[in-house]
Amino acid sequence: MKTRVAIVGASGYTGVELIRLLLNHPQVNITCVTSRQYAGQAIAEVFPSLASRCQLICAPMDVAEIVAQADVAFTAVPHKTAMEIVPQLLAAGLKVIDLSADYRLRDVEIYQQWYQTHSSPQLLEEAVYGLPELYRAQVVKGRLVANPGCYPTSVALAVAPLLKAQLIDPKTLVIDSKSGTSGAGRSEKLGSLYCEVNEGFKAYGVGSHRHTPEIEQTLSEVAGRPVQVSFTPHLLPVNRGILSTCYASLSQEQSTGQLVELFRQTYADEPFVRVCPQETLPNIAYVRGTNFCDVGVVADQRTGRVIVVSVIDNLVKGAAGQAVQNLNVMQGWDETSALLGVAAYP
Amino acid sequence: MKTRVAIVGASGYTGVELIRLLLNHPQVNITCVTSRQYAGQAIAEVFPSLASRCQLICAPMDVAEIVAQADVAFTAVPHKTAMEIVPQLLAAGLKVIDLSADYRLRDVEIYQQWYQTHSSPQLLEEAVYGLPELYRAQVVKGRLVANPGCYPTSVALAVAPLLKAQLIDPKTLVIDSKSGTSGAGRSEKLGSLYCEVNEGFKAYGVGSHRHTPEIEQTLSEVAGRPVQVSFTPHLLPVNRGILSTCYASLSQEQSTGQLVELFRQTYADEPFVRVCPQETLPNIAYVRGTNFCDVGVVADQRTGRVIVVSVIDNLVKGAAGQAVQNLNVMQGWDETSALLGVAAYP
Amino acid sequence: MKTRVAIVGASGYTGVELIRLLLNHPQVNITCVTSRQYAGQAIAEVFPSLASRCQLICAPMDVAEIVAQADVAFTAVPHKTAMEIVPQLLAAGLKVIDLSADYRLRDVEIYQQWYQTHSSPQLLEEAVYGLPELYRAQVVKGRLVANPGCYPTSVALAVAPLLKAQLIDPKTLVIDSKSGTSGAGRSEKLGSLYCEVNEGFKAYGVGSHRHTPEIEQTLSEVAGRPVQVSFTPHLLPVNRGILSTCYASLSQEQSTGQLVELFRQTYADEPFVRVCPQETLPNIAYVRGTNFCDVGVVADQRTGRVIVVSVIDNLVKGAAGQAVQNLNVMQGWDETSALLGVAAYP
Amino acid sequence: MKTRVAIVGASGYTGVELIRLLLNHPQVNITCVTSRQYAGQAIAEVFPSLASRCQLICAPMDVAEIVAQADVAFTAVPHKTAMEIVPQLLAAGLKVIDLSADYRLRDVEIYQQWYQTHSSPQLLEEAVYGLPELYRAQVVKGRLVANPGCYPTSVALAVAPLLKAQLIDPKTLVIDSKSGTSGAGRSEKLGSLYCEVNEGFKAYGVGSHRHTPEIEQTLSEVAGRPVQVSFTPHLLPVNRGILSTCYASLSQEQSTGQLVELFRQTYADEPFVRVCPQETLPNIAYVRGTNFCDVGVVADQRTGRVIVVSVIDNLVKGAAGQAVQNLNVMQGWDETSALLGVAAYP
Repeated sequence: MKTRVAIVGASGYTGVELIRLLLNHPQVNITCVTSRQYAGQAIAEVFPSLASRCQLICAPMDVAEIVAQADVAFTAVPHKTAMEIVPQLLAAGLKVIDLSADYRLRDVEIYQQWYQTHSSPQLLEEAVYGLPELYRAQVVKGRLVANPGCYPTSVALAVAPLLKAQLIDPKTLVIDSKSGTSGAGRSEKLGSLYCEVNEGFKAYGVGSHRHTPEIEQTLSEVAGRPVQVSFTPHLLPVNRGILSTCYASLSQEQSTGQLVELFRQTYADEPFVRVCPQETLPNIAYVRGTNFCDVGVVADQRTGRVIVVSVIDNLVKGAAGQAVQNLNVMQGWDETSALLGVAAYP
Repeated sequence: MKTRVAIVGASGYTGVELIRLLLNHPQVNITCVTSRQYAGQAIAEVFPSLASRCQLICAPMDVAEIVAQADVAFTAVPHKTAMEIVPQLLAAGLKVIDLSADYRLRDVEIYQQWYQTHSSPQLLEEAVYGLPELYRAQVVKGRLVANPGCYPTSVALAVAPLLKAQLIDPKTLVIDSKSGTSGAGRSEKLGSLYCEVNEGFKAYGVGSHRHTPEIEQTLSEVAGRPVQVSFTPHLLPVNRGILSTCYASLSQEQSTGQLVELFRQTYADEPFVRVCPQETLPNIAYVRGTNFCDVGVVADQRTGRVIVVSVIDNLVKGAAGQAVQNLNVMQGWDETSALLGVAAYP
Repeated sequence: MKTRVAIVGASGYTGVELIRLLLNHPQVNITCVTSRQYAGQAIAEVFPSLASRCQLICAPMDVAEIVAQADVAFTAVPHKTAMEIVPQLLAAGLKVIDLSADYRLRDVEIYQQWYQTHSSPQLLEEAVYGLPELYRAQVVKGRLVANPGCYPTSVALAVAPLLKAQLIDPKTLVIDSKSGTSGAGRSEKLGSLYCEVNEGFKAYGVGSHRHTPEIEQTLSEVAGRPVQVSFTPHLLPVNRGILSTCYASLSQEQSTGQLVELFRQTYADEPFVRVCPQETLPNIAYVRGTNFCDVGVVADQRTGRVIVVSVIDNLVKGAAGQAVQNLNVMQGWDETSALLGVAAYP
Repeated sequence: MKTRVAIVGASGYTGVELIRLLLNHPQVNITCVTSRQYAGQAIAEVFPSLASRCQLICAPMDVAEIVAQADVAFTAVPHKTAMEIVPQLLAAGLKVIDLSADYRLRDVEIYQQWYQTHSSPQLLEEAVYGLPELYRAQVVKGRLVANPGCYPTSVALAVAPLLKAQLIDPKTLVIDSKSGTSGAGRSEKLGSLYCEVNEGFKAYGVGSHRHTPEIEQTLSEVAGRPVQVSFTPHLLPVNRGILSTCYASLSQEQSTGQLVELFRQTYADEPFVRVCPQETLPNIAYVRGTNFCDVGVVADQRTGRVIVVSVIDNLVKGAAGQAVQNLNVMQGWDETSALLGVAAYP
């Protein structure tokens, strides 16, 4: 019997991506999709890409209905909205994979400093940070998985091997990230208009982006000591993809070959992290639509720095795909189910 | 036991798309990929999107090798090159799905007028035009399938219902098509450079594009009498997608509702043709990466014309996906195997 | 002494384009820019592209203020808003170049059928249709110039020579147009979001676009008898540019060479219409940011049709540039003042 | 009498940009454009954007001809080709503005280490590095101006104020740059194809890009001591624009307000450097087609770093525009002649 899944907040880009991926999942039956804005409309009317493949009608956000219809819920709603719903879903016995920021930060103070008052801080301890490559053991046993942010995923997978191996000075970490525009969501904002983005490029949120504490939390746990980074996001004129260029000073001399080997060993058993051969670097185009994270690493002998470049699809490994990966891990299924598609290139 | 498949000409965009689709095909084993240019290199080196999912090495074009390793061959090489290889593959007992133009035109005179001398005209009679929605019965029995051109596919599916129902005056047919840049292939031409295409738009081959006789052949067969069209292709600054806007004078009054209904009935049993609800029109974004053809139809009462708008992904329904669909039909498999993916939107 | 110019509705894309062009105009002084939304803000804050080049502050829409500060007003506001303002500006003695649709259609019935009730129909007779290539004599004497729509400009310049020379059957006219996204304006609509437009392409308003009667009005006047067309606009994933592909049956045989020659002669004295050499076709990239309209023409002997392809920049020759051209004509200045810039290619 | 100008290598993107700008220059007459590839063809045939505005025919590269026709030559040819021509042009009495890399590095050893053998090292001492904001006094007297690279221009203007004021630790400089695709030129390379670039993003030349020594040379001169940087270029899917994000540790505490003020003062008299108001950051779209460099600066108190973001148009301030600025300075003309155009936004 298939597991019944609800997608709460189905009319955003993350929602439709969850539907796309789960339609190909052999053990999943999507039983419920909710959308305040489009309640009563067929989801295939909202997203004609789903025509003939998904007959579901958008339901209003009604916890009782969701609970009646689903075993697992993906909550793909904005932060703050998530913490209004998630406790009820858990209380009713559902497993929840929350794609918002509400349960990612373990320290409620830090959450409240970067976001707003937290209404269910008691769940923060239980919540599992759903980056399987680093926290698989916890995800297996999780009831509430906080699906990581897109930028933090791209950064953690790029930098963790270096911190684990104690090869870099964490104080020197500079993270320069570039994200496709779907990361800004589907709301009607001036800054998201085609003509405002196309043929443009800019940095934003310099020194103040909310993913900063999430990045630092993960890197600190990996390093075993507090890590603080400079993190600068930029807006790329593409639909999908994040590329993070990470710089740090090496604390001991390393050749590029040695570093590539380190990354290969670290990720040898990971189905979704692909380490680029020496002398090659990743491109967001190679992971578009997929759950892969491609990583390239270079030692710059002149400056004594290491540069790591990672790419993901912000809507897949940075959101919906990683959520499905977490589902697979939580349910004890093959971790790659529904996630082995190859990028449509070009 | 899986069917062994060779992809001849794997390093073009159609080649890599065939690999992408066939990697998810439960009854297929890709045993051989050839590329003159990259012989000896891993195909995943040529297309890093394939990393960790495909270990094949590009082989040189050697018919004996292909014959030894495969039951079916997809020939994704330029016209002229195709007709040098296909007869040998057939002679050795392989089934062939040829993605070039070499076996699409039944009349060798017309072929030679628009292309060049044909070296295996004897095969033209046997070759089956692989548009399953119109020629499924022949494809089932085919040994050599001529996979249709991208523009002709988009046009035939848009116009056939009207011709079959004898609702339009064929002499008034005007076809205005727009194609994404992957249709120009992966060769290093000035006109295909990013800066020459991006933020640009142009018509080309006005009155002289080689897909014209192919379009006319199909429409004539459907209509049961000679059909001649004005066909104008344009180059769109997108990677993938063809949209064809087709105009014709109605020979009897029809409402949009009646026409939508006609299209629905015509394609009721077709898994890959989706007719848009009245008042809505297709977008190439909804079919990107998929084998769907979405069709919208409007009756313009003021002018007495019908306008049909169809969209496909030129690399999928317009090439590799249709080729896999033909494979499924030829082999008696489920016609939708490996082809039910939904577009990654956005 | 310079002519004092007001730009009413300066915070849209047409408004900022007017500023860009007029900053380089030797006889113009922009004295007033208005914006309801940004009143009180520096226009260079709204559009940082203007930094260091324009110190104006957005004023609220106050007719008395505009009248006090300007000799000529460009009204770059939506239709309906225009007809609330224009009569007052005229009454106060200003010359007005209106970029909305409100004074383009001479027949108030037709206006009211496609738009809404007209509140100043008495001005329709006086209003001059500001397409200098066809109506220069009237523009010279105009007090109220109705600046043409973007699509109608691209179509009129493409088709007029054929109608004037009585070479085509007007009943067979099919116009397939494609516009860049800036044509949709700067308002925050779902359909204008980057991710909804990028890598997409669609037709819209089939058989119902409001530019249809405007196109037909001009073509009818040129032909000297009623002309009805099929007009289909499409949304291009580029910032700027309109390409119109126009089809008609030739009423007498013509070679491409003869048609090119006809176009050359027709536009021999026009500084902004460039006829492409035989065998070449225009590209929107060649006119980006400029007031040029490039036109290419082909006779298709097989079908007896002529195909004309025209390109303009929808914000320049399709709006702000043509408005400046009209200003030049009205003021008796060099018609090309401030308008001879070459496209930044690529 | 106008100054006669030759553009050597007119058929590349920098060449056509020089033509575009110089056509609007009141004191310049372009007398000669050369192109090996298109010799004998009208330049307006090579670039139809120039139609009706430029009647020149491409000449083959013949030094005697150039010398006979011009007073000043812009050499817009690849490095190595430049040093074959420049000495002859100088010897014949022309002033030369060389847009290649051949005369930018003062130290021939460093040149030969990053490029190849230098055939006219004797000119390196005389050559002036044409970044007027830093070297105006020398440019005034220059006979051979080495026009800076695009990346180095964007970096020098961003970082110089901090080094001059001794506010940063040069050892901590990390430069993360992103360039539009026109930076790769107009040659037919696989990596420059539309489908390879569009919807993609990648880093390249990590730790090894040839602009690194040029950046370090300028920054070292400004700092008065050797500066070494980590410099990582990336390829942006846009036609034009470079954005450089520059990170360094502050050697003393500074607020964002103080840093903005420092930049304002530094560039108070510079017509082409625009410092963004506090809390705002530049976008390449705001400088497209213009000679402006927009700079934004942020102090990140948490990490003690300063982040400077600069944008230029790589073909204008990063190449042709800066070359014209140098011409203006060399000739004693208004430095802004032909260079005050505003970006066409959007």
